[in-house]
Amino acid sequence: KHIVVIAGDGIGQEVTTVGKQVLDRIAEKFGHEFTYDEALIGHAAIEATGSPLPEETITKSKQSDAILFGAVGHPKYDNDPSAKVRPEQGLLGIRKALGLYANLRPIKLFDELLQASSIKPEFLQGADILFFRELTGDVYFGEKGRKDDGDTAYDLMIYSRYEVERIAVKAFDAAMTRRKKLCSVDKANVLESSRLWREVVQEVAKRYPEVEVEHQFIDAAAMLLIKDPRRFDVVVTGNLFGDILTDEASQIAGSMGMLASASIGDTTGLYEPIHGSAHDITGKGVANPLASVLSAALMLEISFGMKAEAEAVVDAVDQVLKAGFRTRDIADSNTAADLILGTEAMG
Amino acid sequence: KHIVVIAGDGIGQEVTTVGKQVLDRIAEKFGHEFTYDEALIGHAAIEATGSPLPEETITKSKQSDAILFGAVGHPKYDNDPSAKVRPEQGLLGIRKALGLYANLRPIKLFDELLQASSIKPEFLQGADILFFRELTGDVYFGEKGRKDDGDTAYDLMIYSRYEVERIAVKAFDAAMTRRKKLCSVDKANVLESSRLWREVVQEVAKRYPEVEVEHQFIDAAAMLLIKDPRRFDVVVTGNLFGDILTDEASQIAGSMGMLASASIGDTTGLYEPIHGSAHDITGKGVANPLASVLSAALMLEISFGMKAEAEAVVDAVDQVLKAGFRTRDIADSNTAADLILGTEAMG
Ligand SMILES: CC(C)[C@H](C(=O)O)[C@@H](O)C(=O)O
Ligand SMILES: CC(C)[C@H](C(=O)O)[C@@H](O)C(=O)O
Repeated sequence: KHIVVIAGDGIGQEVTTVGKQVLDRIAEKFGHEFTYDEALIGHAAIEATGSPLPEETITKSKQSDAILFGAVGHPKYDNDPSAKVRPEQGLLGIRKALGLYANLRPIKLFDELLQASSIKPEFLQGADILFFRELTGDVYFGEKGRKDDGDTAYDLMIYSRYEVERIAVKAFDAAMTRRKKLCSVDKANVLESSRLWREVVQEVAKRYPEVEVEHQFIDAAAMLLIKDPRRFDVVVTGNLFGDILTDEASQIAGSMGMLASASIGDTTGLYEPIHGSAHDITGKGVANPLASVLSAALMLEISFGMKAEAEAVVDAVDQVLKAGFRTRDIADSNTAADLILGTEAMG
Repeated sequence: KHIVVIAGDGIGQEVTTVGKQVLDRIAEKFGHEFTYDEALIGHAAIEATGSPLPEETITKSKQSDAILFGAVGHPKYDNDPSAKVRPEQGLLGIRKALGLYANLRPIKLFDELLQASSIKPEFLQGADILFFRELTGDVYFGEKGRKDDGDTAYDLMIYSRYEVERIAVKAFDAAMTRRKKLCSVDKANVLESSRLWREVVQEVAKRYPEVEVEHQFIDAAAMLLIKDPRRFDVVVTGNLFGDILTDEASQIAGSMGMLASASIGDTTGLYEPIHGSAHDITGKGVANPLASVLSAALMLEISFGMKAEAEAVVDAVDQVLKAGFRTRDIADSNTAADLILGTEAMG
């Protein structure tokens, strides 16, 4: 299997190094051969080539069997709203170029981290949510621009039936292999694009009579996710609402540093931590690499169909946590100082 | 003072009855005279007149000194995405017709409710956030519609400099009277309308050198709100992001049933619980009326400048909670059964 590593910006570099080490260890243990290539994206790519997504990165990605992705972003651009070339264009561009329309974000709490969250353990125990976030449509990719001499700015939130249907089908298929519950999140009481979303999900639902379906408005969903996370099994939603809900849901798993994601479409899959470039801790060697490690596990399972290998990785994470080891973000006041590890040691 | 009561749908009726009783008690105690009128909105208005916002409701509202609002919404429409006339159009319409561009949503935890939340008390204690949600722009009011024979649906997310500036000024002014911290929430790494938002907030910030300003992306903000609610003082954001964040923030206050809001513009103010019509508990007499009561307190303070009167109401709520009384939504496993009250008794 040929894997392209796109480390990107900030802690992306540090954490994918660990993700890749874990893949190597798996190859060794299970007798596989993984070959690697590297490619540029984001701020790193802008610095080197002027573009956040060089053509070469797309070509290499298309030719690979899977992509291990780090993060993109740089504070320089965040504080300069007028910048025309931005690191995030690299990530949005590769999602679009590879047709990665389904972003799977599993939210599962490792028992050992029950105390790491700001949410009470009795609300968390047993929570297990699989988000399907649509990834190549919505207000992310609709026409955007300025008018009135730059004094008015707009972004078109837009969905087509086809786009909603294919992500809904993926989500319902997944629900059938789980607890057979699906929650679709929209804002159909206000938005026309959400009304189309709801219509299509209702239609697809008819093909899955065994799945118990509910529709929630995004505001209510953002509240219920914290109030009662265990009520959710599979959640399917648009690009923007999915971005918001899954970051929020990171508190269910104790830390954003634990959350992996898989972006899939009809070809090469891309595996990526949910966390961003985190420039505040970049280069300090303290970033939690487990989201990248768990992203590698998703790659093994989804792109390579290597179930046992994926389980071995998840087990290893579990054992490390059971042994008491923590990175800073998942440590609590009871963690002994010598159990708090840096990125490399945790790897 | 002349007050228009627009109770609307579902529990809106039950809770505004209590809100109005509290206003009457204040009038009696402090020697004011409040006169009332009623007006229709939402599903109730559709049933009676065919329109979710009859002309008469706008006229009465404009002629009043303040509006006590209940809720709008009906499950019938939620499950029928194709309905052309919808209860929510009444609420959106009145916000627009009265120019209510600033929605203030104070999130403050009553000490007695520290245990009612799913969030650990040590993360909540002392949390005190004032949200400024922009209320007459954004994707709520941009052009919306269908194309491709109905197979594509869109909503335009749009902001003008002027709209951002006036809400930013209100938020900064409020920050100056509080802890002098302001967090502006957008998605400037992806959206052009957010980039304009950030530009304008940065400009307005220059006029308030004493205020410490931060910008957060909506995804990060949704996470930080739960991870560390105390880091926020004033939060200013757009219509859609504000809708989501304030519902989520209800978990900081223990229950949505506790949260009041003020919608203000250049004329008559509208005072409204954050919770919706809640048809699942309508007519059962169990709805928590305290959000309506606290909305009445905001009316006294903001529209009528009656500070002592507003404080008397908040104190009364505090005392009732201290005495141990709870509605169902804020009761916990330690609440004795005879302390759990219905809507009327709580009033
Ligand atoms: C970096 C940003 C463009 C991206 C997004 O909003 O999709 C990130 O927040 C994510 O969730 O992957
Ligand atoms: C009922 C609905 C249209 C409304 C909104 O989204 O603004 C409500 O959720 C609110 O927050 O007041």
